[in-house]
Amino acid sequence: MEQPRQGYCFTAIVGQDDMKTALILNVINPNLGGVLIRGEKGTAKSTAVRALAELLPERREVVDCRFGCAPEDLAHMCSECLEKLEQGVVLEESRGKMKVVDLPVSATEDRVVGTLDMEHAIKTGEKKFETGILANANRNILYVDEVNLLDDHVVDILLDSAAMGVNTVEREGVSYTHPARFILVGTMNPEEGDLRPQLIDRFALSVTVVGERGVDKRVLVMENRLKYEDEPEAFFTEFEPMQQTLREKIETAKDLLAKVTYSGKILEKIAKICIALDVDGHRADIVMLKTAITFAAYNGRLEVLEEDVIEAAKLTLPHRMRRNPFEDTILDLSQLEGIA
Amino acid sequence: MEQPRQGYCFTAIVGQDDMKTALILNVINPNLGGVLIRGEKGTAKSTAVRALAELLPERREVVDCRFGCAPEDLAHMCSECLEKLEQGVVLEESRGKMKVVDLPVSATEDRVVGTLDMEHAIKTGEKKFETGILANANRNILYVDEVNLLDDHVVDILLDSAAMGVNTVEREGVSYTHPARFILVGTMNPEEGDLRPQLIDRFALSVTVVGERGVDKRVLVMENRLKYEDEPEAFFTEFEPMQQTLREKIETAKDLLAKVTYSGKILEKIAKICIALDVDGHRADIVMLKTAITFAAYNGRLEVLEEDVIEAAKLTLPHRMRRNPFEDTILDLSQLEGIA
Amino acid sequence: MEQPRQGYCFTAIVGQDDMKTALILNVINPNLGGVLIRGEKGTAKSTAVRALAELLPERREVVDCRFGCAPEDLAHMCSECLEKLEQGVVLEESRGKMKVVDLPVSATEDRVVGTLDMEHAIKTGEKKFETGILANANRNILYVDEVNLLDDHVVDILLDSAAMGVNTVEREGVSYTHPARFILVGTMNPEEGDLRPQLIDRFALSVTVVGERGVDKRVLVMENRLKYEDEPEAFFTEFEPMQQTLREKIETAKDLLAKVTYSGKILEKIAKICIALDVDGHRADIVMLKTAITFAAYNGRLEVLEEDVIEAAKLTLPHRMRRNPFEDTILDLSQLEGIA
Amino acid sequence: MEQPRQGYCFTAIVGQDDMKTALILNVINPNLGGVLIRGEKGTAKSTAVRALAELLPERREVVDCRFGCAPEDLAHMCSECLEKLEQGVVLEESRGKMKVVDLPVSATEDRVVGTLDMEHAIKTGEKKFETGILANANRNILYVDEVNLLDDHVVDILLDSAAMGVNTVEREGVSYTHPARFILVGTMNPEEGDLRPQLIDRFALSVTVVGERGVDKRVLVMENRLKYEDEPEAFFTEFEPMQQTLREKIETAKDLLAKVTYSGKILEKIAKICIALDVDGHRADIVMLKTAITFAAYNGRLEVLEEDVIEAAKLTLPHRMRRNPFEDTILDLSQLEGIA
Amino acid sequence: MEQPRQGYCFTAIVGQDDMKTALILNVINPNLGGVLIRGEKGTAKSTAVRALAELLPERREVVDCRFGCAPEDLAHMCSECLEKLEQGVVLEESRGKMKVVDLPVSATEDRVVGTLDMEHAIKTGEKKFETGILANANRNILYVDEVNLLDDHVVDILLDSAAMGVNTVEREGVSYTHPARFILVGTMNPEEGDLRPQLIDRFALSVTVVGERGVDKRVLVMENRLKYEDEPEAFFTEFEPMQQTLREKIETAKDLLAKVTYSGKILEKIAKICIALDVDGHRADIVMLKTAITFAAYNGRLEVLEEDVIEAAKLTLPHRMRRNPFEDTILDLSQLEGIA
Amino acid sequence: MEQPRQGYCFTAIVGQDDMKTALILNVINPNLGGVLIRGEKGTAKSTAVRALAELLPERREVVDCRFGCAPEDLAHMCSECLEKLEQGVVLEESRGKMKVVDLPVSATEDRVVGTLDMEHAIKTGEKKFETGILANANRNILYVDEVNLLDDHVVDILLDSAAMGVNTVEREGVSYTHPARFILVGTMNPEEGDLRPQLIDRFALSVTVVGERGVDKRVLVMENRLKYEDEPEAFFTEFEPMQQTLREKIETAKDLLAKVTYSGKILEKIAKICIALDVDGHRADIVMLKTAITFAAYNGRLEVLEEDVIEAAKLTLPHRMRRNPFEDTILDLSQLEGIA
Repeated sequence: MEQPRQGYCFTAIVGQDDMKTALILNVINPNLGGVLIRGEKGTAKSTAVRALAELLPERREVVDCRFGCAPEDLAHMCSECLEKLEQGVVLEESRGKMKVVDLPVSATEDRVVGTLDMEHAIKTGEKKFETGILANANRNILYVDEVNLLDDHVVDILLDSAAMGVNTVEREGVSYTHPARFILVGTMNPEEGDLRPQLIDRFALSVTVVGERGVDKRVLVMENRLKYEDEPEAFFTEFEPMQQTLREKIETAKDLLAKVTYSGKILEKIAKICIALDVDGHRADIVMLKTAITFAAYNGRLEVLEEDVIEAAKLTLPHRMRRNPFEDTILDLSQLEGIA
Repeated sequence: MEQPRQGYCFTAIVGQDDMKTALILNVINPNLGGVLIRGEKGTAKSTAVRALAELLPERREVVDCRFGCAPEDLAHMCSECLEKLEQGVVLEESRGKMKVVDLPVSATEDRVVGTLDMEHAIKTGEKKFETGILANANRNILYVDEVNLLDDHVVDILLDSAAMGVNTVEREGVSYTHPARFILVGTMNPEEGDLRPQLIDRFALSVTVVGERGVDKRVLVMENRLKYEDEPEAFFTEFEPMQQTLREKIETAKDLLAKVTYSGKILEKIAKICIALDVDGHRADIVMLKTAITFAAYNGRLEVLEEDVIEAAKLTLPHRMRRNPFEDTILDLSQLEGIA
Repeated sequence: MEQPRQGYCFTAIVGQDDMKTALILNVINPNLGGVLIRGEKGTAKSTAVRALAELLPERREVVDCRFGCAPEDLAHMCSECLEKLEQGVVLEESRGKMKVVDLPVSATEDRVVGTLDMEHAIKTGEKKFETGILANANRNILYVDEVNLLDDHVVDILLDSAAMGVNTVEREGVSYTHPARFILVGTMNPEEGDLRPQLIDRFALSVTVVGERGVDKRVLVMENRLKYEDEPEAFFTEFEPMQQTLREKIETAKDLLAKVTYSGKILEKIAKICIALDVDGHRADIVMLKTAITFAAYNGRLEVLEEDVIEAAKLTLPHRMRRNPFEDTILDLSQLEGIA
Repeated sequence: MEQPRQGYCFTAIVGQDDMKTALILNVINPNLGGVLIRGEKGTAKSTAVRALAELLPERREVVDCRFGCAPEDLAHMCSECLEKLEQGVVLEESRGKMKVVDLPVSATEDRVVGTLDMEHAIKTGEKKFETGILANANRNILYVDEVNLLDDHVVDILLDSAAMGVNTVEREGVSYTHPARFILVGTMNPEEGDLRPQLIDRFALSVTVVGERGVDKRVLVMENRLKYEDEPEAFFTEFEPMQQTLREKIETAKDLLAKVTYSGKILEKIAKICIALDVDGHRADIVMLKTAITFAAYNGRLEVLEEDVIEAAKLTLPHRMRRNPFEDTILDLSQLEGIA
Repeated sequence: MEQPRQGYCFTAIVGQDDMKTALILNVINPNLGGVLIRGEKGTAKSTAVRALAELLPERREVVDCRFGCAPEDLAHMCSECLEKLEQGVVLEESRGKMKVVDLPVSATEDRVVGTLDMEHAIKTGEKKFETGILANANRNILYVDEVNLLDDHVVDILLDSAAMGVNTVEREGVSYTHPARFILVGTMNPEEGDLRPQLIDRFALSVTVVGERGVDKRVLVMENRLKYEDEPEAFFTEFEPMQQTLREKIETAKDLLAKVTYSGKILEKIAKICIALDVDGHRADIVMLKTAITFAAYNGRLEVLEEDVIEAAKLTLPHRMRRNPFEDTILDLSQLEGIA
Repeated sequence: MEQPRQGYCFTAIVGQDDMKTALILNVINPNLGGVLIRGEKGTAKSTAVRALAELLPERREVVDCRFGCAPEDLAHMCSECLEKLEQGVVLEESRGKMKVVDLPVSATEDRVVGTLDMEHAIKTGEKKFETGILANANRNILYVDEVNLLDDHVVDILLDSAAMGVNTVEREGVSYTHPARFILVGTMNPEEGDLRPQLIDRFALSVTVVGERGVDKRVLVMENRLKYEDEPEAFFTEFEPMQQTLREKIETAKDLLAKVTYSGKILEKIAKICIALDVDGHRADIVMLKTAITFAAYNGRLEVLEEDVIEAAKLTLPHRMRRNPFEDTILDLSQLEGIA
């Protein structure tokens, strides 16, 4: 039951490399499209997502903006910031960290989208919109634990919002719209039921996690955990160097990202893989390309190599193959390399 | 997750000719009756509908009319405009573009039909009706993504409204009616469940889209998309000439439309096709004729040819054949030509 | 989607003679008991019912009565008119046309039965009942499109109301009752689901419509429709003479109706047919007799002939035969004539 | 649809003797326990119950009592009458007819049980309970058409109320109780679904009605009905003598009822029949005895004969035999007589 | 339908000895744990429970206490009485009879648990809790007819309340708790559906009743009932001596109860029976022991004999045997005696 | 039904050692993670949990804190205490006993999470949050009887709360968060239905209880119970020495707990057992280690032995083995010892 508030160390998580990589790639490239983490009970899924918070980069934010607008991005600015700009106000800015915002499975619609307080608006003439979770999620990670148990109506709202990049609340003919661009991260235990197919496809990446099967690693898991519970200070001190290394690697990759290039052969490779595996539509191709680019940046390279494509395929294709999604999810690496 | 607000370029969509044609025909002839687009995930269905916005023609609108009334069409004018006319007011007019209006799958009844604010009306004596989505949809395209997931009650409202060409809201004995004539465009993924048969028949046209299977086209899809995301300015500049060409072709077709003629043989051909394929009722015949006329205009002709009928059949018949709608939807062209 | 407000011409509908006859018989004899029209999509069912409006006869109405009371019929007068009469007021009267009143499938209970506004009544001392659809339906045609999709609770209200000939609204111990005698006309597509057996029996007549199967008729359907859409003025001018002829024939039949007689042999013929076909109960006999009488009037005769009985049987028996209602609905004419 | 308000003549109903007898026995002996009428569509079930109103006897009533209390029956008097008596007020009385009170299948709980108006009570200090249908039903016939379609919650209320002979309404800790002793009469079409077994047993008697199968009777049904619709005055005049005869026979039977005696052999006969037919519990015995007594009174006798028992068995046993209630409902008369 | 208010005579019920014994044992020993009576329609189940009221003993009660607190039992006293005691007030007491309190199957949660009237409390400063059925049930018999039809939510409340011996109502952070210790008596007809297993186990005893199969007893049932309905005074006079005898026997047994002793052999006998019959848990043992003790007192003895255990087993074990509860419920007496 | 308020003696419970040990371990180590007790009816499950209250240790509490904050634990302090500290207030403290807090299966969301009283806050400016059950549960045992019947929505809240260690209430844009760290104890009867797999895993330990099968123990159960009911004073006096011994043993174990050490071999043993039994994830390893440590402390040792691991395995693994949880739950001790 016990759950200290400051969270675990991401780098203290033993194994689970695919999950960790998928999360980091999304931090490097917030436009990648989120990740779905599936796995049995007790495989540190939630722990990993929450531990990610410690690694998230800083970025520019408008001071006092309820949606954390980016001062440099007029195209996705909220109406409140835009109004100030129109009035000639210079937007004050600061640096703030990206956050992990929780969407509890018991959240009501009001809590998710926010509320329009008509009465208050009439009386005071200001501040009519009380923000909800989607406002907090803008430019951040929106985390849904037990995503397969989410109420259908909330899923609809989430999908509408994700598709448009904005959240719109309407009440008695008055409406309010604000930007709601977030990295969607979901975790689920397949024993608890399936995910709506429509929602599966919204996740760019997917990984399946299983418990470690080696004695040494399991011992390490226990040691790390007990040290964390019994001697938190010592625990954090021990892992801080690894945390710092990873933070810097992420920063570097973010800087490289826009400069990564790719050849026509890379594009053809991706197309051929998707045709060979008979995936639905074209989203897989696009996501795989973007993932491969991000992989290259993560590896400190400025050009996409075939190995980036292979790695990207492992994270982007398993939930997109026709028929039984997730069945036979272990793609044969050599098979992918053979395609060309 | 990321979805820039200004939308994609319609002409940058690779392949998917039937879908693109069906959308354009509806823009040319707003009385045609809408289109249903069915297809697997990731086939640019939503993208295409939203991209259509950029191509929509201008037309005359009454200034400040909440329903975008056409000053030249007294028969479908709202009560507010008619009242002004009766009081001898000359309606000020401007030119405005047709729009794509979204009906989110999570929309409530109030949001769809609008609300009658009794209290406000009593206090101020005016402006009692707060418009909903159907008001915005008048003379525009009403777009329903995931149309097969729409709540049954909202579907009923939509069908009532579509059948009457008006939207009526009643509350405590007071009622408000306004014109609600719209082009209904729906997209759906058949994996997510079937569409109510009643609703299927409301769509004049239907198309089924699948992902491209050629490497070159898939590469092109990726290239266009990445350029759009990374260098939006360059992307829009590259496609603007093609966009402009299509805009002009649509304008020309709209001008020709009322002048297109057809022979008795054309009517007989249509009737024979419908009898041969054993479609339900007479709606298919009428819709096929109107589609063939619109095809002729789109092709710059003033007379309907047999080839227009054949093309129209492909868009109008697949969802109207008895038994399994949509099964075996690929009509054999030569077979249709053989009927006479 | 497009649906001009003034409706189509009844006489321009190609074929569908049973449906047209059934509707006209109900107009001639409002006590006949309504009609249920079943048929596949696109067979002009709704169009026919709405087009009927143009042919409806005038009759006497109390001026400003919210229920359109007949000044000559004290037995079915509303409480408001009766109160005036008791106060010695002479009821002013005018001539008004019978109407087609829509009951949308999405209508709420309040909209159907009307509302008792307690608050308003307390404050102003008057006008407490806001009428609903059933008030409008009194002495008119109540039309339910998609009657098989009607909410169960609304069906209960409709059946209670139809059985009693009045509508009663109760709220907080206060009640309001008004006459609600209407001709119930329903249309439905059997593909959309079955009708509650209880509701089927409430319809005196039933017809099943199918699309025309001849090329010439289908061409005519298209020609009429396109002319209607493209040149409405010309269209209405062309059919007006036929419309006028039919209006007069209806008027004549209404005058004859009360004078039509029938022999004992006619009654025996009806009883024998019902016994031979093993229908439930006695409603079939009574309805068949009334339909035969109305047929005689429609044909300008003052006596019921055997041929009227045969025609009446075709409209009244198909949905009343035991087991599978509507299956094998085509009664063998010669077989009926053979019964005696 | 048409349904004149004054109702049909009970004696003009052709055939259906069991149904008519069962209804009359309940009028003669209001403690008998109601009747359930089952039958196919169009067999005059509702018509018979409503026509009964015309035959109902007068009895003593307290003037202005909302529950129609009997001045002679202190044991079942309402609290309002009792309060007056305690205050030394002499209750004014008049003679009033028993009534048929409708319980519409769409009735809400509030309408059935009545409402406690807290607010009004606080302000004015009086008249807090607004009566519902159960108040009207006290000492009258409570008629439920389509009794098998009644909402489960309303059935619970009805059963609670019938079991206790009173109706209790509670709101916010305040409660109001009034007598609610009624003759429960239900009609139903078995095609529409079954009745809850618990509710079946509450009906002392049950009859099954089918349409007449003879030509002459069917002709008579039509003649009566058409005369009723076309010449109501003549119709009522024709049947008045028969109505008057029946009214007097009922009055006589009511007077005899308390004086009817029965031998021990009669009781044994009843017990043996119930044992032989293996009915549930003892309610059948008691109801059969009371029915036989009422039969004797109806036949003008002061002693119960075996033939009364046989007739009573036919009305009381069919729905009480184990296993399939109502199946094989036609009891073999000679078989019953053979039991002794 | 008719149900005189004063109830039937318990001793006039013919046969049904197990049911009558089980009810009486609970009256003698209110801590026994209630009884569930199962049986077919018309077997006087409700009649017996309601008739019990006439036999219930008097006991000490605090005057004006809404929960009927016992002045001698501080451990289960309500907060209102305790407060008075703390203020040094001497609680006035009187003698009152135990009651049968009805829990109607249609009762709402508010009616069962009572309500906290916040508004009233604020204004007047007193009497904020309006009692519900559970308040009335304290120290009385709580009777649930049709217990198997009780709403799940009400069952949960009942079980919570029974488990804790108190009823707690909470609203907006304010809570009110009062004693709610009652004898739970339920009746049900198994045809109407099963009882939740959890609820079955809450009843210490269970009996199954069937109609009498002998002619003489059935005749007696009818005679008693008709006399009761026709000559209530004579009926009550006839049975009063037997009622008085039973009342005195109950009083005597209540006095003996605390003094009854039992040997170790009795305990072993009980344990062996439960092991042999493979009942769940230990509740059966404890209940059987308490029932045997009460049997001894009822039989005027001060020591438990083996025959008391055998009788107790027949009332306590049938619904506690594994697998199909109630199936094969007739325990073989000789078999039980054989266990030792 | 009867349930004295002061509860039973924990040490008077006969047998059921696993259940008793599991409960005590959780009291010794509140971070262990709760226990799920499964078993047939009547096996003292609830009795044991409630009896635990008497044994719970005292600990430091902030005086008047609604969440019972620990003055020494700033990391989990409520906002109200923190605010005081920031204002320089020294928190007054006292010693208070850990409690067993009930979560009734009928509890509403409001009762569980508490309520934000907006209105009251506005008027008085203070005390806006009314605490719910989760506030009371902080630092205490939260007990859910019939945990498998808990409403899904309440389970979601419970899981959210347990995962975060806090309870967050949101209303109209205002939110309130407080610590909610509790020991979750659930009891259930598997006959009543299964537990959601997600919830099962939240319980660190699980035990299955069955009734005793030996005559002597069953007799002892009866003797203890009857003494408790009839002579409570004598009963409590008899068991007090045993209660005191256990209380002291718990206190000692709590003091030792932080000092217990373990070797690498112990960790390996645990890992090997989990691998051999193929449990899901790593939670089992961690929980088993913590349980073994607590066992060592309970046994008065400062080092974990293999026997502690074996005992821990019996309490932590049965509900975590793949496939049918709880089936074949009896782990073979020798088998576990064989693993190494």
